[in-house]
Amino acid sequence: MQQPPHGFKTEEFTKRTGRAQEIMRKHELDAIVLTAPPNFRYFSGFESQFWESPTRPWFIIVPSSREPLAVIPEIGAPEMLNTWIKDVRTWPAPRPSDDGTNLLASTLDSLPRRFGRVGFELGREHSLRMPVVQFLELGSLLHGCELVNGSPCIWEIRMVKTEAEIDRIRHICRIASDAYARVPEVVKISDSEREAARKLMIELARHGADSIPFLPAISGEGGVAQIVCGPHDRRIQSGDILFFDTGATYDGYYCDFDRNYAVGEVSDGAKRAHEAMWRATEAGIEAAVVGATTDQLFAAMAKVIEEAGSLGNNVGRLGHGLGMQLTEPPSNMPGDGTVLKENMVLTIEPGFEYAPGKMIVHEENIVVRGSRAELLTKRAPRELPVIRP
Amino acid sequence: MQQPPHGFKTEEFTKRTGRAQEIMRKHELDAIVLTAPPNFRYFSGFESQFWESPTRPWFIIVPSSREPLAVIPEIGAPEMLNTWIKDVRTWPAPRPSDDGTNLLASTLDSLPRRFGRVGFELGREHSLRMPVVQFLELGSLLHGCELVNGSPCIWEIRMVKTEAEIDRIRHICRIASDAYARVPEVVKISDSEREAARKLMIELARHGADSIPFLPAISGEGGVAQIVCGPHDRRIQSGDILFFDTGATYDGYYCDFDRNYAVGEVSDGAKRAHEAMWRATEAGIEAAVVGATTDQLFAAMAKVIEEAGSLGNNVGRLGHGLGMQLTEPPSNMPGDGTVLKENMVLTIEPGFEYAPGKMIVHEENIVVRGSRAELLTKRAPRELPVIRP
Repeated sequence: MQQPPHGFKTEEFTKRTGRAQEIMRKHELDAIVLTAPPNFRYFSGFESQFWESPTRPWFIIVPSSREPLAVIPEIGAPEMLNTWIKDVRTWPAPRPSDDGTNLLASTLDSLPRRFGRVGFELGREHSLRMPVVQFLELGSLLHGCELVNGSPCIWEIRMVKTEAEIDRIRHICRIASDAYARVPEVVKISDSEREAARKLMIELARHGADSIPFLPAISGEGGVAQIVCGPHDRRIQSGDILFFDTGATYDGYYCDFDRNYAVGEVSDGAKRAHEAMWRATEAGIEAAVVGATTDQLFAAMAKVIEEAGSLGNNVGRLGHGLGMQLTEPPSNMPGDGTVLKENMVLTIEPGFEYAPGKMIVHEENIVVRGSRAELLTKRAPRELPVIRP
Repeated sequence: MQQPPHGFKTEEFTKRTGRAQEIMRKHELDAIVLTAPPNFRYFSGFESQFWESPTRPWFIIVPSSREPLAVIPEIGAPEMLNTWIKDVRTWPAPRPSDDGTNLLASTLDSLPRRFGRVGFELGREHSLRMPVVQFLELGSLLHGCELVNGSPCIWEIRMVKTEAEIDRIRHICRIASDAYARVPEVVKISDSEREAARKLMIELARHGADSIPFLPAISGEGGVAQIVCGPHDRRIQSGDILFFDTGATYDGYYCDFDRNYAVGEVSDGAKRAHEAMWRATEAGIEAAVVGATTDQLFAAMAKVIEEAGSLGNNVGRLGHGLGMQLTEPPSNMPGDGTVLKENMVLTIEPGFEYAPGKMIVHEENIVVRGSRAELLTKRAPRELPVIRP
């Protein structure tokens, strides 16, 4: 399989924008304003690690009937002019007295109005990447134009992926699959969780990951107590399950899947629990067809999990959307109600506590396709791979 | 030098909290609510990579006269109970109809009131890590309690570091210094910027970095056109300056400093520009004394930069605060007006365009101390190190 290039062609952005504008009109929005890195990059192609600095806000405006505009700090102008965005407006930043507020307001004021509504990232699974006081000030500067919650519109746009996006996700899933395959060779019994994580980090970099924002490594006898925090200094020992999860990126796109390893000899209970979650994953992949709901996807996995004797699961859902963020809408859970469409990318993530303090969680990444989901990850082995002394 | 442990003792948190509460009372706040990962971790010690998932908001409340409380999703409870925080309240998340809003409101309502004001991360250099619509809903649920901009208070708290914090920053600065020293050995002429960045990433991991959120690699003949975007696919060639910057972390604390390398033979102009910025850095370190202002710090560097024949600098400032974020207040720039205090950690970051499209930028990390700043980084060599064929 060929490695996709970094960066997208202009046609990709015109296609994204055209589709987005249709959805915006349905939501009765004259424009959407993007501040968060994934949204900003989705429409502009602008790639930067400078987002790590919270000092300066950056804005992309996508009007419902014109090409996108950038309203950004001067420091970003040279590189922004290399993207497909033609209309780039800048201010000298940082400028605490007015960090782009008036420039953004006058730019929004100059756009054609039909609905008098502009969408911002105000809703679920969004953090507005500008100070709230600045956002409120912006609202007071605009006349005849309401700043509304654009999140449902933005998520409707981003939830269905293009083939070019899927190519990137498939590529990072392959990189991480290959790195995971190296774990039994490089991780040793009595490594600390931190050492194990560092070794996997190096394997991910070697195999071609651009960045590795998410890499928990957690261990516990026969299973893990939680999957949110770690690595810690704990040393892995025979009888443990070593749980790795990773969200590594390629060209701005994430994988998000975990793997479990038996350290030396583990209990039969742990092996059975692992096998049960493997089967729950099969059920999830099977159920992820066009037209099914995320509720049904949850139910298909939950049935296997319950039959395996679950004590519970504090994760609250069994997978979610995936793309330019580690997690995106929808959530595979009761009440979510999202109807699966072709080219949605999802994680299938069944897990349970099979004994007090012992969780086993599996995860694979898929694309929803016509007849059967396409698996993006190399499927986890049905039997636990073993880290030997 | 010994490696600091991961995690802080309870005394560190009681000390931070006590000092914070004094500052909060000065700002007439009954409590501050923290949602952003660095702020959340600063007061709780809770470490998680789970922040990469934007689905669930998390809250730490620091009342002005009681111990901090956590209001968090169930998934985080097992690990939060391992921190020094005793009062942990949870809700089953994700729960789109009420993701903690009512629980947070009732918790805030139960706290003692003196000023009727609670500070949130609403101001400069802060992005509130919860949906804005949720924040506005929360405000409407509270009676006799105003939700105000707590950012000035929070930054006043975090801007001055404890010795335990400085130990971590010193350690990651040493790790990155050692990794940078390896560059001439591992990077080769005709490597692409991406390959060069990957090699430095592996060196940083090998030397003990926990994570590497920021690692630009940018090249250009005799200097770089910008310092914000990259690596790209461009291959480095003789005559180039290869510019690396990194914000790697140890135990939640960043370094942030760059290094320049001559690729093969570079022009005398580039060498002179490098030397000039080395001297500007000296001037900056010299000027960073208790009682000086960030304006004066800027002026000391600007004098050397202007004498060297600057065409400009679109960065807008010559360094900034550093700690649990890659960049923090203050900004070394005219009008910032911050008076330097003992134990502030700063970057000293002079840069200029010495010829059209050719920038040279230096950077070191320091702690403001009584008589003279303590250098945390291994000082860049005065002469450009060379990457040979």
